[in-house]
Amino acid sequence: MAEERLTTSELRDVWALLSGDERIDGFHQVDPAEADDFFLGLSAREQAQMLLTMQPGERRLWLRLLPPDDVADTVQQVPKEERAALLELLDDASRREVTALLAYAEDAAGGLMSPRFARLRPEMTVDEAIRYLRRQARERLETIYYAYVLDHEQRLCGVVSFRDLFAAPQNTLLADVMHTSVISVEDTLDQESVARIMAQHDLNAIPVVDENGRMKGIVTIDDVVDVVQREATEDIQKLGGMEALETPYMQTSLVSLIKKRAGWLSILFIGELLTASAMGRYQDEIARAVILALFVPLIISSGGNSGSQATTLIIRAMALGEITLRDWWRIIRRELAAGFVLGVILAALGLVRILVWQAAFHSYGEHYLGVAFTVAVSLIGVVTWGTVAGSMLPFVIRRLGADPASASAPFVATLVDVSGLVIYFNVGRLLLRGSLL
Amino acid sequence: MAEERLTTSELRDVWALLSGDERIDGFHQVDPAEADDFFLGLSAREQAQMLLTMQPGERRLWLRLLPPDDVADTVQQVPKEERAALLELLDDASRREVTALLAYAEDAAGGLMSPRFARLRPEMTVDEAIRYLRRQARERLETIYYAYVLDHEQRLCGVVSFRDLFAAPQNTLLADVMHTSVISVEDTLDQESVARIMAQHDLNAIPVVDENGRMKGIVTIDDVVDVVQREATEDIQKLGGMEALETPYMQTSLVSLIKKRAGWLSILFIGELLTASAMGRYQDEIARAVILALFVPLIISSGGNSGSQATTLIIRAMALGEITLRDWWRIIRRELAAGFVLGVILAALGLVRILVWQAAFHSYGEHYLGVAFTVAVSLIGVVTWGTVAGSMLPFVIRRLGADPASASAPFVATLVDVSGLVIYFNVGRLLLRGSLL
Repeated sequence: MAEERLTTSELRDVWALLSGDERIDGFHQVDPAEADDFFLGLSAREQAQMLLTMQPGERRLWLRLLPPDDVADTVQQVPKEERAALLELLDDASRREVTALLAYAEDAAGGLMSPRFARLRPEMTVDEAIRYLRRQARERLETIYYAYVLDHEQRLCGVVSFRDLFAAPQNTLLADVMHTSVISVEDTLDQESVARIMAQHDLNAIPVVDENGRMKGIVTIDDVVDVVQREATEDIQKLGGMEALETPYMQTSLVSLIKKRAGWLSILFIGELLTASAMGRYQDEIARAVILALFVPLIISSGGNSGSQATTLIIRAMALGEITLRDWWRIIRRELAAGFVLGVILAALGLVRILVWQAAFHSYGEHYLGVAFTVAVSLIGVVTWGTVAGSMLPFVIRRLGADPASASAPFVATLVDVSGLVIYFNVGRLLLRGSLL
Repeated sequence: MAEERLTTSELRDVWALLSGDERIDGFHQVDPAEADDFFLGLSAREQAQMLLTMQPGERRLWLRLLPPDDVADTVQQVPKEERAALLELLDDASRREVTALLAYAEDAAGGLMSPRFARLRPEMTVDEAIRYLRRQARERLETIYYAYVLDHEQRLCGVVSFRDLFAAPQNTLLADVMHTSVISVEDTLDQESVARIMAQHDLNAIPVVDENGRMKGIVTIDDVVDVVQREATEDIQKLGGMEALETPYMQTSLVSLIKKRAGWLSILFIGELLTASAMGRYQDEIARAVILALFVPLIISSGGNSGSQATTLIIRAMALGEITLRDWWRIIRRELAAGFVLGVILAALGLVRILVWQAAFHSYGEHYLGVAFTVAVSLIGVVTWGTVAGSMLPFVIRRLGADPASASAPFVATLVDVSGLVIYFNVGRLLLRGSLL
């Protein structure tokens, strides 16, 4: 009875659409030789889901396949009351490793590292080191390609790549071939900074040390790819004016999709209610010159768009470590200049449009020149202000200790909308007094 | 005469502030033992800038330090007329490699790969392979940790990791230890897809083959970190409503900063001019009921914010490969439901606000109930429409063959602003006929 085999890529294609039980069924139909790679390639969340759906015996098999840093990630994805039972399935040594990792915040270097790195002693020869690593090749070390030279107190003295060992004469002491100016990170450092340091120095692995300089583990570059991708997704979603989803879009339930969006949308709405109050203060002006109301959406959206550009630029540059808090003064000067020029460009476009429409259709009555200049001057003011406010808000929010990505573009737009209205109507009062108003 | 030495991290701190000549000066003050790592860690653009500033002899030294894929990137950063002179500085073999790489688009697998990978033959024994790789450890291969087994026509038959070799008995044939189900990419595949495939399969290196299956090079995971970071930055900047900067914010000149922003800002402004036309069609209604104008910013920004959420979510999910074009029908149903619920929430908030303000300040006159329901019903319509339009626009743009990130959030907001006004004033005509209008 030949059973139909699924290929892993067929399974991957339909994966998002399957229920928990269907996933297990599909998984059982995959060629056993490929099933392990497939399982290892799943996200921690999917692994957790599968483990909880499996029968106990099978659960142990697949849990033990995972290296300790992955087990820690997976365990953090299951409900608190089921964690102990999962940890029970590990052998004692692994359980100790995982428990140690669980003590770290998920998004710190300690939560990202693997404790299974290759340790060498400075007094070993190159030949001994190679033979030692060769024995380790069958063990479950994260990598044998980078080995760390530790003293008797587990403090990091140096690092050698396997390649260095191969290129060096066999009887040299490690102390003489190892690189001693090792870049390492502390276990409490946040994962974004770890990613940044590794990218900056083009490292494939970085050692993690505790506050006393004792080495605790390594973070490898493949973990960093996930971090970079995930952090970018979070920032993009926050910039889009919502909470970060944490799960892929298609796997997020409708209820949680709405929850993640309703909060910020309501906050923005309540902020935007101020525009109704602001407009209310200029009710008389609108009644006397309805024409002024026609340009309200144009004015405020121009401020919002320019603010959104500025805030996006600054937040991304901050996330990449290109700018820090102390750069604010240089940035405010650049953005003031950029905002003014952009405002002048839009003002010119607005002026042309009003004058052309007036010539063609007489749309704006006898005071069209006053209206045209009110719109143009307001645009310069609103766009300059929107740009400066948009670029500075991330600094303010970061100074207050919060995540600047939450200074999302729509939030800036809302802030700028209210002030844009005030600018516009006051320019109108000034330029149109005695004619339209 | 002891010269003051700069550390590389001191130099890196001030790097962005230095002119071309100052960079060379600073670079010369760095400990020569660390200068090479510093140079290798610079971006292709910075390397190109430094090479062009250096004296010819020094230029050759540093250019030859770079592996061929980095030379290709760097050469692409210098003006066309200076490229040939740079290529002349390479030895013949390297120049051939670099010229071959330059034929590929910068953002394709072929433009990202290194041609210096370790090649083995299936009929070699494990022991021969290890000895061969050991000799290669001193050569300038991209990595010796993954070796590719090729047949006589350079077609890829399998892959072995160094670790596999170490764990296998010495006399086994490579044909018997190698993994034959190798995941590879074609040289024309775009780099985002390469990054996605490597992340999905947790690969540290991926072979690149031409259309005939002949192996051309490898892409390693450290290149992918840069790709992921750069692509996220581009997407974020496009979502912010501008062209991608291509250089770090602080190193972008004011002129180019303005250019990258003015284009989209002007397009959005011209689109937004339609709001003035739309408002013009409802001039009579505004004249009769100024109160309607007060809520215009509230209504359109709510549509814009909800559209911006939806478009951000979909564009990111597309970039991560979580959703494809054929998912549009499932997404439109989800977003329709989400948009409706979000609209109802905002409508409720709006209703409460108007009723409370009316009770407290009599702000909205005798027809306040009609106004309140006009605002509430419009909010449901505008938010639902904004959400659906925001989620579908990326599909339309992608279907047309363009980059969905260009369906930037402000672009959606502008689209939704115009249609939001039409919805609002038509709901008003319907609900307020005979009372306010």
